Amino acid sequence: MSFVTCRMPLTIEWAHCDPAGIVFNPRFFEFFDTGTWHLFEAVLGVPRQRLMKAHGIWSIPLVDAGADFRIPLAFGDAAELETTIGEFRRSSFDVIHRIFKGDKVAIEGKETRVWAGQDPANPERIRAVPVPEAVIAKFKRA
Amino acid sequence: MSFVTCRMPLTIEWAHCDPAGIVFNPRFFEFFDTGTWHLFEAVLGVPRQRLMKAHGIWSIPLVDAGADFRIPLAFGDAAELETTIGEFRRSSFDVIHRIFKGDKVAIEGKETRVWAGQDPANPERIRAVPVPEAVIAKFKRA
Amino acid sequence: MSFVTCRMPLTIEWAHCDPAGIVFNPRFFEFFDTGTWHLFEAVLGVPRQRLMKAHGIWSIPLVDAGADFRIPLAFGDAAELETTIGEFRRSSFDVIHRIFKGDKVAIEGKETRVWAGQDPANPERIRAVPVPEAVIAKFKRA
Amino acid sequence: MSFVTCRMPLTIEWAHCDPAGIVFNPRFFEFFDTGTWHLFEAVLGVPRQRLMKAHGIWSIPLVDAGADFRIPLAFGDAAELETTIGEFRRSSFDVIHRIFKGDKVAIEGKETRVWAGQDPANPERIRAVPVPEAVIAKFKRA
Repeated sequence: MSFVTCRMPLTIEWAHCDPAGIVFNPRFFEFFDTGTWHLFEAVLGVPRQRLMKAHGIWSIPLVDAGADFRIPLAFGDAAELETTIGEFRRSSFDVIHRIFKGDKVAIEGKETRVWAGQDPANPERIRAVPVPEAVIAKFKRA
Repeated sequence: MSFVTCRMPLTIEWAHCDPAGIVFNPRFFEFFDTGTWHLFEAVLGVPRQRLMKAHGIWSIPLVDAGADFRIPLAFGDAAELETTIGEFRRSSFDVIHRIFKGDKVAIEGKETRVWAGQDPANPERIRAVPVPEAVIAKFKRA
Repeated sequence: MSFVTCRMPLTIEWAHCDPAGIVFNPRFFEFFDTGTWHLFEAVLGVPRQRLMKAHGIWSIPLVDAGADFRIPLAFGDAAELETTIGEFRRSSFDVIHRIFKGDKVAIEGKETRVWAGQDPANPERIRAVPVPEAVIAKFKRA
Repeated sequence: MSFVTCRMPLTIEWAHCDPAGIVFNPRFFEFFDTGTWHLFEAVLGVPRQRLMKAHGIWSIPLVDAGADFRIPLAFGDAAELETTIGEFRRSSFDVIHRIFKGDKVAIEGKETRVWAGQDPANPERIRAVPVPEAVIAKFKRA
C-alpha cells in the first residue's frame, strides 16, 4: 500500500540554529508538525484550521515521536520536507517525515497520532475514535 | 530617501500559535529576524550565512526591538512580511517590518541593529564599526 | 505610585541561544510573557491558568512590546527577571521587565496589554474593558 | 548498572502551550536538551558552557531522539524532569528523560548522543571519539 506524499521547501534560518550553528533538534519536530497539517490539508481538501470541525473530531494528538538525525542542517541551507503516511490503524496512524538536503535524507522522523473526539461515555472527555474509511481512502495513492 | 523592500510569504502554523489560537508574540520577532537576513541577502547579493565574512564584520546584533500588534493572526492565516530599512546611521541602522493580512498592516515592528566587527583596540572584542557607504548605497532604491 | 515587583531566576540554556552563542532575542519576549503571568498569579492570588475565568475576562492580549538589549546573555549565564507594572490606564496597562545579570540591567522591556472581555454589543467578540479598581489596588505597593 | 539521576522542576507556561492548551511537543525535546546539560554539569562538576572545552571535545551532538507522550501537560501545571543515562557505548550514549506529573510518568524520552571531537585524519572535521572511562565512572552510582 502506498500513500499520497506532500513536499514543502524548508529554508534554514538563523532562528532555527543553535550555538553549534546547526538546526536545534526541537525545530525538526516543529517542522514535522507543520508537515502533518499540510499533508492533511492537501489530501482532505479542507483548510488545516478547519480539519477537526470538518471531520467531527477534537484533535489529532501525538502519542509518540522520534527522529534520526543523519546530516546536520546549517544556517542558510535549503532543504525539503517530504511527508506521507506510514500506516493507518483503527484509531491511530503514523506520519513519516523525511527532510532532504539535495537528494540525501538528512533527517527521518515518525509521529504517531490519534484520531480523537468526544468520548460517548463522557461528553467532556476526549478519546481515540476510529479513523473513517473515507478519510483513509483519500490518503491512498491512486 | 527610500530603500529597497523585500517581501516574503508567511503562513501561520499550529506551531506559531498559543492557547488563545493566535500567534504568540515572540514568533513575530523571529519572523522579523528572518526578514532582516532575507533583505540583506537580496540586497547585498551574498548568501545570508556568508554576509558577515563577506563584509568583514562579526555580527549585526540587535540593540532594540519593538512591535505594535494591531490585528491578531490565527492558525491557517496567510500573511506577508515586508521588510525595509528605516534609516542608516553611522554604525547602526533600523529595519522596519510590516506583516500584512490582506491589504492591512496587522503587525508593525522595528529592529535597531549595529554593524559590528573587531575592536581595533582589542582584537578579541566586538564593537560597532561604520556601515560602509557601498553597503548603504545598495539599499537605496534606484 | 509604586507597584508590587516579582522576581524569578532565569538560567540561560543551550536552547535559548543562537549561532552567536547568545540568547536569541525572541526568547526575551517569551521570558517577559512568563514574567507577566507570574506577577499576576503572585499579586492576584489565583493560579495563572485560572486568572481570566476568575476575573470574568477572556484574555490580556498584547498590543505593543519592546526591549532594549544592553548586555548579551550567553549559554550558562544566571540571570534574574524582575517584573512590575509601569502604569494602569482605563482598560490597558504596561508591564515592565528588567533582566539582571549580577546587579546590572542587561535587558529592559515593556509590554502593553489590554484587559479584554466580552463585547456587550456582540457576545461573540472580544473588546477592551475597564480594569477593575479592586485589581489595580492589589498591585499597589503597601 | 545504575547511573546518577538529576531532577529539575518544570513549570508549564503559556509560552509552552499550543492552541489545544497543552505543551506543544517540540518543547519536550527542548526540556530534554536542558536536562542533559544539567545532568552533565552536575555529574562532571564543570559549568555546562565549559563542558566541551574541559573534556577536549567539540560537541555532544544528537543522532536520535524519541518520546512517548502519555499524559498531556497544560498551562500552569507543575512537573519534574528526571534525567539519567541509559547506556554508555564506545563513543555514544543514551540519555533517558522522564517528566513526572505528580508520581506518574507523563512523558518518557530518549536521546542518543555522540561524544565528538576533532577527526585525527582531518583536523577541520568532527567525528565520534571514545567516551573516556573517567567520564563514564563519574556517572555510575556509588
